[in-house]
Amino acid sequence: MRMYDIIKKKRDGGALSEQEIHFFVDGYVRGEIPDYQASALLMAIYYQGMDLDETRALTFAVRDSGVKLDFSGVDGLRVDKHSTGGVGDKTSLVVAPIVASLGVKVAKMSGRGLGHTGGTIDKLEAIPGFQTDLSEEEFISIVNEIGVAIVGQSKELAPADKKLYALRDVTATVDCTPLIVSSIMGKKLAADDDCIVLDVKTGSGAFAKTVEESVNLAKIMVDIGKSAGKKMLALITDMDRPLGANIGNSLEVIEAIDTLKGNGPKDFAEVCVVLATNMLYLAGKGSMEECEAMVKQVISDGTALNTLAKMVKAQHGDDSVIYNPELFERAKFSCEVRAEKSGYITKVDAEGYGTASLMLGAGRNTKEDKIDYSAGIILLKKTGDKVEKGEVIAKMYANDEARFSGAVARFNLSTEINDNPPAERPLIFERVE
Amino acid sequence: MRMYDIIKKKRDGGALSEQEIHFFVDGYVRGEIPDYQASALLMAIYYQGMDLDETRALTFAVRDSGVKLDFSGVDGLRVDKHSTGGVGDKTSLVVAPIVASLGVKVAKMSGRGLGHTGGTIDKLEAIPGFQTDLSEEEFISIVNEIGVAIVGQSKELAPADKKLYALRDVTATVDCTPLIVSSIMGKKLAADDDCIVLDVKTGSGAFAKTVEESVNLAKIMVDIGKSAGKKMLALITDMDRPLGANIGNSLEVIEAIDTLKGNGPKDFAEVCVVLATNMLYLAGKGSMEECEAMVKQVISDGTALNTLAKMVKAQHGDDSVIYNPELFERAKFSCEVRAEKSGYITKVDAEGYGTASLMLGAGRNTKEDKIDYSAGIILLKKTGDKVEKGEVIAKMYANDEARFSGAVARFNLSTEINDNPPAERPLIFERVE
Repeated sequence: MRMYDIIKKKRDGGALSEQEIHFFVDGYVRGEIPDYQASALLMAIYYQGMDLDETRALTFAVRDSGVKLDFSGVDGLRVDKHSTGGVGDKTSLVVAPIVASLGVKVAKMSGRGLGHTGGTIDKLEAIPGFQTDLSEEEFISIVNEIGVAIVGQSKELAPADKKLYALRDVTATVDCTPLIVSSIMGKKLAADDDCIVLDVKTGSGAFAKTVEESVNLAKIMVDIGKSAGKKMLALITDMDRPLGANIGNSLEVIEAIDTLKGNGPKDFAEVCVVLATNMLYLAGKGSMEECEAMVKQVISDGTALNTLAKMVKAQHGDDSVIYNPELFERAKFSCEVRAEKSGYITKVDAEGYGTASLMLGAGRNTKEDKIDYSAGIILLKKTGDKVEKGEVIAKMYANDEARFSGAVARFNLSTEINDNPPAERPLIFERVE
Repeated sequence: MRMYDIIKKKRDGGALSEQEIHFFVDGYVRGEIPDYQASALLMAIYYQGMDLDETRALTFAVRDSGVKLDFSGVDGLRVDKHSTGGVGDKTSLVVAPIVASLGVKVAKMSGRGLGHTGGTIDKLEAIPGFQTDLSEEEFISIVNEIGVAIVGQSKELAPADKKLYALRDVTATVDCTPLIVSSIMGKKLAADDDCIVLDVKTGSGAFAKTVEESVNLAKIMVDIGKSAGKKMLALITDMDRPLGANIGNSLEVIEAIDTLKGNGPKDFAEVCVVLATNMLYLAGKGSMEECEAMVKQVISDGTALNTLAKMVKAQHGDDSVIYNPELFERAKFSCEVRAEKSGYITKVDAEGYGTASLMLGAGRNTKEDKIDYSAGIILLKKTGDKVEKGEVIAKMYANDEARFSGAVARFNLSTEINDNPPAERPLIFERVE
């Protein structure tokens, strides 16, 4: 078997066999297939696509490229939730404690942020002392005791994805369905969960711009997950606007805490309830109505917030910030962003908001950058809101005043204000089982 | 400017600017742009193509990537001929001495063979003592004295092409019009000729399978050559069958000598006369009829053969082999290939014949392989000929008997024999000015 022939076959629209896909992925991970042949194949896949069998084989090859986790030491069903990524998406911080409070285990591995999107691990590290690098024994023991633990993704987990993603990132081959599917599901299937709920984003800020595209993406992932023996379910949720009001690491933890207290922003709280309900439903905890009622119960009685605090403490973090979020370190400087004209906010570019937050210090441009956990943005007005010229529509936070001017400009560029209000848009579009 | 954005623009079907193309080619030659980004762009170009302006800019960028030759020391007009490549194509060995005999200078740089096609330089090196690596002074002095010299291509000439071609070769991006054009014309325009006649092959053994595709390819190259200030002309010639009867290095030199004596195979001799006629015509030596008469004259009176002998001697070769081709070293072993059934040879795969010759030792699989100059094939029957089962249709030559069985099998696989004769097919299809 030669890599050249595999490239040529895909270039000419052929379907690659399982053997050919394994030859590529395994050889690439071992360094026997050079980057330049891999990138040529990725670009050919970008144009020619992959059918379901090829996508499944690629996903399984990515899954099998490293160690497979063994969570058999965890008592009871394990459920995970994965989002296809979005600005201001801190749902994991809310749904994981809710679900764990109701007896379903969450042994979660999360990533760090790069570029305009944040990562759950960075958000958790905004909590003083919080450890995301635990031994397997400690991790499993916390999951058994508290019901939930969230750690960073092991380097040995699906190394093919790491290598392929880094290559896709610099060769304009990120936006490609089979490559997205194999990246997400390859990693998810290498973990040892029983049930997976996918949160597939749709809209201008997401890879899948239309609901139809998102449903298609969701169906492929659900299908592949099921064929690997997982219970699967996907929700198509809106990414035409950032979720919630807060962007930035400690700001997002604070918003998650508010939501676990029942005081979160309406859109974000709604998505959290629906996701948690579906996770419980998939784990066989009852009908959708029963699961929703349980979710609302553990929010209103404080159980879910307590679970978050217990997890923070177990992972060596300072749980006092969970009960007193005002203890989070504050940024030295703040700045008000004012509406440039009167009208309705008709459209925002979520990616642009993420970039503005990054410019304030809340993210990293390269893997080596240090994050300023207190930097970020609080949105006071969102899509659909009426604003007056000069009215404060957002507040920015940073520890370096020089960062505001660029971030404000980027923010304004990403905010469209027009005379007429935009069409209403649902938060959750479809459910794919 | 970022390479990522250039890849993405082409990926999405955009036309690259001259600046973007130079950024890519120059950065790639300097090693600042990695292979994996270059191969992703090449694959995107494979799918999206390039318009004439882009192809011209790419060609000029390749031309400008290294030293430009200065042949101003040569007295008189300089003409070159370039073939898009084919099995058994030894026309340069014939047309260069013809044209030089008639006062038009040929300062030619040629390549070595790799894979199933041979290279003019390898064929010349089959002549004992022949030197293809001359100083610029000696090269120009021979051109001035004899009218023709043929040397290997300098490493500093269009280095972008060398680097890009090596990458295309392993990433399945060779068969792509703008990349072919920029490779051929980038090198040709870096040399310092006044007139260029292109021999664009058409048919199953060529990149351009149909006459229409070949004409399109020829028009682009002629257009770009003219815009660089060259006099240009292209002929579309047949590549559904190998040219002439001999394949292999010294065998091809012998056939070229026969042709310069007026005893060459009809098809090969005709193509040589037409190409030489067009080279003279383009150099302003007279009407097409006048030029053709001059060509035939220098063949029949022996002038052209003498010019070849003089060039061989000036390039330190043994010119006695030109007058006595039986002095060429012979292969130790020969083998007859017999028709597997009776009928007409309806189709041959020229590439397959080239591969069979390679298997006999006449070519190289890798750059490091040593060539056996005496190895090769003499075709006794060609497309259109009637054959009887068991009749000898070809003779093979090698210095290692073990090589015959594989080569014979490859040869037979590449020879179709059927009951009815194939349709007649012209040797020369069109002329593009």
